[in-house]
Amino acid sequence: MRRKGLASMAVHTASTSADPSGTTDSRVDLGPAAALSCRECGERIPLGPHFACTACFGPLEIAYELPDGDPEGLRKRIEAGPNNIWRYAELLPVPAGVADTPNLNPGFTKLVRAENLARELGVTGELHIKDDSGNPTHSFKDRVVAIAVQAARAFGFTTLSCSSTGNLAGAVGAAAARAGLRSCVFIPHDLEQGKVVMAAVYGGELVGIEGNYDDVNRFCSELIGDPIGENWGFVNVNLRPYYAEGSKTLAYEICEQLGWRLPDQLVVPIASGSQLTKIDKGLRELIALGLVEDRPYKIFGAQAEGCSPVSQAYKNGHDVVRPVRPSTIAKSLAIGNPADGPYVLDIARRTGGAVEDVNDEQVVDAIKLLARTEGIFAETAGGVTVGVTRKLIESGALDPTLTTVVLNTGDGLKTLDAVAPTSQATAIIRPNLDSFREAGLA
Amino acid sequence: MRRKGLASMAVHTASTSADPSGTTDSRVDLGPAAALSCRECGERIPLGPHFACTACFGPLEIAYELPDGDPEGLRKRIEAGPNNIWRYAELLPVPAGVADTPNLNPGFTKLVRAENLARELGVTGELHIKDDSGNPTHSFKDRVVAIAVQAARAFGFTTLSCSSTGNLAGAVGAAAARAGLRSCVFIPHDLEQGKVVMAAVYGGELVGIEGNYDDVNRFCSELIGDPIGENWGFVNVNLRPYYAEGSKTLAYEICEQLGWRLPDQLVVPIASGSQLTKIDKGLRELIALGLVEDRPYKIFGAQAEGCSPVSQAYKNGHDVVRPVRPSTIAKSLAIGNPADGPYVLDIARRTGGAVEDVNDEQVVDAIKLLARTEGIFAETAGGVTVGVTRKLIESGALDPTLTTVVLNTGDGLKTLDAVAPTSQATAIIRPNLDSFREAGLA
Repeated sequence: MRRKGLASMAVHTASTSADPSGTTDSRVDLGPAAALSCRECGERIPLGPHFACTACFGPLEIAYELPDGDPEGLRKRIEAGPNNIWRYAELLPVPAGVADTPNLNPGFTKLVRAENLARELGVTGELHIKDDSGNPTHSFKDRVVAIAVQAARAFGFTTLSCSSTGNLAGAVGAAAARAGLRSCVFIPHDLEQGKVVMAAVYGGELVGIEGNYDDVNRFCSELIGDPIGENWGFVNVNLRPYYAEGSKTLAYEICEQLGWRLPDQLVVPIASGSQLTKIDKGLRELIALGLVEDRPYKIFGAQAEGCSPVSQAYKNGHDVVRPVRPSTIAKSLAIGNPADGPYVLDIARRTGGAVEDVNDEQVVDAIKLLARTEGIFAETAGGVTVGVTRKLIESGALDPTLTTVVLNTGDGLKTLDAVAPTSQATAIIRPNLDSFREAGLA
Repeated sequence: MRRKGLASMAVHTASTSADPSGTTDSRVDLGPAAALSCRECGERIPLGPHFACTACFGPLEIAYELPDGDPEGLRKRIEAGPNNIWRYAELLPVPAGVADTPNLNPGFTKLVRAENLARELGVTGELHIKDDSGNPTHSFKDRVVAIAVQAARAFGFTTLSCSSTGNLAGAVGAAAARAGLRSCVFIPHDLEQGKVVMAAVYGGELVGIEGNYDDVNRFCSELIGDPIGENWGFVNVNLRPYYAEGSKTLAYEICEQLGWRLPDQLVVPIASGSQLTKIDKGLRELIALGLVEDRPYKIFGAQAEGCSPVSQAYKNGHDVVRPVRPSTIAKSLAIGNPADGPYVLDIARRTGGAVEDVNDEQVVDAIKLLARTEGIFAETAGGVTVGVTRKLIESGALDPTLTTVVLNTGDGLKTLDAVAPTSQATAIIRPNLDSFREAGLA
């Protein structure tokens, strides 16, 4: 059954997979990254700008040679490292000197102990928000793009590119500017003005495509196969295996910020599902390396009802994720055909978690709940995870007596429209005390 | 001459200064803060919610009993502290246990080595951007509000308030939410929708005043004098001496991040002028405490041409700042009658710096220059400092061979309109390679 889900993903991506032979350099320096390996058949190929297995079209991921034997030494080196994701350079596909190269240095964002929110939700255990709105362009995308930049450099790419509907465009534009790479980002031509401005301000090429996001993706695949795209690194296509690893740093940081301790439960948003699978990978690595105790944890996936193919498959007991046409205010999660959906189902079931969804009204309520309890203004994706957390507590799926970490992956300033209708002035008054008293606020 | 400038400021604030007697508790625990002292006549009064001297109407500031005799020990304690402003708790008007109280933990934002920008500006020395867009609500206001929250608690205030046109409203709303205080924020009723939403989302009271910012301020002064306002802490009025001290942390962080070294030159934006004066105060404290070498530094003030009363006074050799009616896109700096203007003039002249201004077109150019060179999307205030830096280099006032730190105090996402007209898609194409080639981007 699972293979079907993957086959549908392969249709999406494999058609443009270049033949690795001839474009690969096995001596490329990406630190502990040793090879690319297929998540389906296990085939290994040398490191290169490839994303689909030549044997079975399965997705490729990074295989590592990680440090072993001295967890205490590794922990000390991490703790002595910079206050960004490069403190974990020994566990990432990046060269050892990465922290000295010009980049945006994302990560090590706040893990906020959310006691006010816990009270409202009836959580008696520890509740934490991992708040990635503190990243340089205010979303978790800075993490993944920073890793992709290193891969782009290693493979000699001179243009950094992506297809995007928002957060990623800004993250790529900013990272390329700082790294001294050319950037050329593709978006649907009718995006909201705010997102267009954010993507354009970093000075790279910004190309609007007359079509929807699927059309943009298809065009990018065509471009990679064309000589024009020869020196182009598409962070979420031909650099995807590297890019995706950036999400592991969320797992590393959460555990380190908890005092080198696994949380009992994590609530993670699902777009393509990549982030959730890499958080699981990161947690398993920390256990294997001896940096945290080996004990169970549960991963819960969160979707918006209007784009909930993984949640629907989970609830129906399916291994296959049936694509949907998204219709939700949580646009950064609106991927109707999530490539990593089957893996997410595996992880939720293996760890004893679940996948749940909330409707747009619940998303808005959750954004406002988080804002008024903890002073964190989350993007709609954060409304999804907080809303799902509440729903999971009510259903009993999530244990409110344990340690739980909920991810906020973006910033409310980027999705103002979601809360605008219900976030307005309490009162409009004339500038005098009588008018103030009349408003009933004294 | 200087007294005149202060007199004009006193008109603005002193009319609502409560009599300190009876409302003051000298045993209030605000750490090393020992008293309030008048910046003009030196009069000392016990700590309390007061902002103007009862003897001369001069502005009050915090007088400290700072640790002495063991700079090495202090430095180590700071370095072992949390990654936020509370690492400097021993130097701030806050209780020792401040880091354990629920607050937004702002500060320790990135100091970015800006080599790309340096090349463009012809800077051969070190050029750094202190990027305060990384704060919780994405402006430096989180620093000052965090200190005001501690004062509000110490004085038993139950409502946190302010008058604001933007950044401060969000910072107060968020901080109060997290701290469990009621908030009631006053804004002009016709603010841009985005700013209203940001101020409202944290769930406090948000009151639109039918009038301009001056009307809002006058109303707040009236409210403080009325029994209604008895338990209200207005962060930028009756808590102003505490609030203002938060800006010292910018100086502390810059020096620590430079390896406990003073920069040679700093470029700081001027709104009320408070931030610049407190940065100077912070630098002098570090010297007095033996944490940095005692050597000269120069502070440069930056204004927008459409609101440049301090710059005009500087250029004309005046000690008096003549109020102006602001007209600039740099709205967060648009204070036409800056309370600390005379002190800013003193500091610029004493340190060998200067005050300069740039027009709105130069502000936009500078925002885009910083974005395309360093991947930092600054608010208009950051465009002002970067633009002024360029102008000061061209005029020879700023030495490009030395170590310079330029402040970016806010986030471009909050002032999208400034760059929107000139930050758009490079091209709109159909989703095929021919169309892409025709656009000339291949």
